[in-house]
Amino acid sequence: MSLFHGLSAFPITPADDHGVVDVEGVMRLTAHLSAAGVDSIGLLGSTGIYAYLTRAERRRAIRAAVQSVGGRTPLVIGIGTLRTDDAQALARDAEAEGADGLLMAPVSYTPLTQEEAYRHYAAVAGATHLPLCIYNNPSTTHFTFGTDLLERLAGIPTIAAVKMPPPPEGSVADELARLRAGPVGKLSIGYSGDWIAAEALLAGCDGWFSVLGGFLPTLARTLVTAARNGDAATVRHCNARLQPLWALFRAFGSLRVAYAAIHHLGLSEAQPPRPLLPLPDPDRQKVAEALRACTEEQA
Amino acid sequence: MSLFHGLSAFPITPADDHGVVDVEGVMRLTAHLSAAGVDSIGLLGSTGIYAYLTRAERRRAIRAAVQSVGGRTPLVIGIGTLRTDDAQALARDAEAEGADGLLMAPVSYTPLTQEEAYRHYAAVAGATHLPLCIYNNPSTTHFTFGTDLLERLAGIPTIAAVKMPPPPEGSVADELARLRAGPVGKLSIGYSGDWIAAEALLAGCDGWFSVLGGFLPTLARTLVTAARNGDAATVRHCNARLQPLWALFRAFGSLRVAYAAIHHLGLSEAQPPRPLLPLPDPDRQKVAEALRACTEEQA
Repeated sequence: MSLFHGLSAFPITPADDHGVVDVEGVMRLTAHLSAAGVDSIGLLGSTGIYAYLTRAERRRAIRAAVQSVGGRTPLVIGIGTLRTDDAQALARDAEAEGADGLLMAPVSYTPLTQEEAYRHYAAVAGATHLPLCIYNNPSTTHFTFGTDLLERLAGIPTIAAVKMPPPPEGSVADELARLRAGPVGKLSIGYSGDWIAAEALLAGCDGWFSVLGGFLPTLARTLVTAARNGDAATVRHCNARLQPLWALFRAFGSLRVAYAAIHHLGLSEAQPPRPLLPLPDPDRQKVAEALRACTEEQA
Repeated sequence: MSLFHGLSAFPITPADDHGVVDVEGVMRLTAHLSAAGVDSIGLLGSTGIYAYLTRAERRRAIRAAVQSVGGRTPLVIGIGTLRTDDAQALARDAEAEGADGLLMAPVSYTPLTQEEAYRHYAAVAGATHLPLCIYNNPSTTHFTFGTDLLERLAGIPTIAAVKMPPPPEGSVADELARLRAGPVGKLSIGYSGDWIAAEALLAGCDGWFSVLGGFLPTLARTLVTAARNGDAATVRHCNARLQPLWALFRAFGSLRVAYAAIHHLGLSEAQPPRPLLPLPDPDRQKVAEALRACTEEQA
């Protein structure tokens, strides 16, 4: 199975108030995910606060994860940053530390044109030999990939996958069929936005880039395995029990909910970087209830 | 006249391909603006590529500007960054270098809640004694300030001004009257988005945060002075001649047009930071024509 297939679990990156990564914490979380049998770990994704960490701290996190699970579970590293030269340096750092793949969002301050995004990806994809996944996440980056741009990017040798957001309209199945019929079809096509994961898995997408997988990897695996076996009833049953959690992801942002869930499950005491605030107590209570709803048949 | 009144000119920050600031270039550009009699210089604004420069390079730029014009023309420094602790450090750097004021946008990766933005501003405003201007720029930051939030922020002692974007609906005059009638009225209220500057100046706003002022400061001063003298005919006449330039600002983004204009005027050879690309030749030609249209009666 290729690097960008199956369940990719996106953990938080525990760090202190000054953005110093807790390497023991990274090792513990990644070991937990590896032991649960996830297909890859998406280190330094959005939930892994890549945007809030310096180059040096990102590198320390990668080193810790490689030390903890390298060779057992593939590591895909988020390398998004504003400047092209900085993104190239982050890609080279990931390769030097022994990571297996790269994930890059078109983060911007001045909004990017399609041509600027193309050249940015081409320059970064050419900086290492690692396979790269396009991180298409318009709700965070506010960048929209045109079909032409995705098709051009699919022609770059080291670009191997695309991480798609929930479709703005229409079904995942329709979007997937359209993408696979064209030049983008040579890429692995995975989805994020956990609340559409069941739909995307049943539609036969290649991978699920999962926030849930970062703290409940066994439950996330259950969905992926059931979908792979054509067991739609189990996928729908799990997904129904996850509705309260998906509602909180959408209401509070999946990052804030992930931190609260990780605290509740005793996996880490880390807090999100300021200005992001931990959820207040009543909302943390809702997270605890949503976790009970989706896990009481588990374990 | 207070720091955030009148014409605030926003120059580019010349830097090389690796993000190293050209301190001679900064000194030359700021001296040019100071000699033209702008009321303040907005160093490291959006046009001044603050988001693309490291803390050390931002500090070098401030030092160069203070050395060039400090004490003659007030310097307002853009200090936006993702982390609260980093923004506090940038504020302290600006104060230590002898700047006169701060400008901060609520830049984010994970979208901020109103409460998170409030605490971010409170923490940064409390880090120095410098007056701070709220940089309200939803088209770049994708953060929307609610009325409640602006009113709460107006109560923080060192918050002195707000830089407003073009109103999403209704006139600047109506928005200004509404803001001045409430708690936000204790702040200086200025506008950005050069294409609505004439309207905002004629409506009696306190300041114009101007990209045009960063490369044609004399023309920008003509508008501000005419508006201050109640000479609406001159404001409208200038503004009519600026329409081709405003159209290009809106089509290509004012930053890309500012670079092309600065090249055409011989003020700097600097290029924007990759992934941002210089305008291609045909579009640079349009910029040259728009500059001719607005300047042929000048000089």
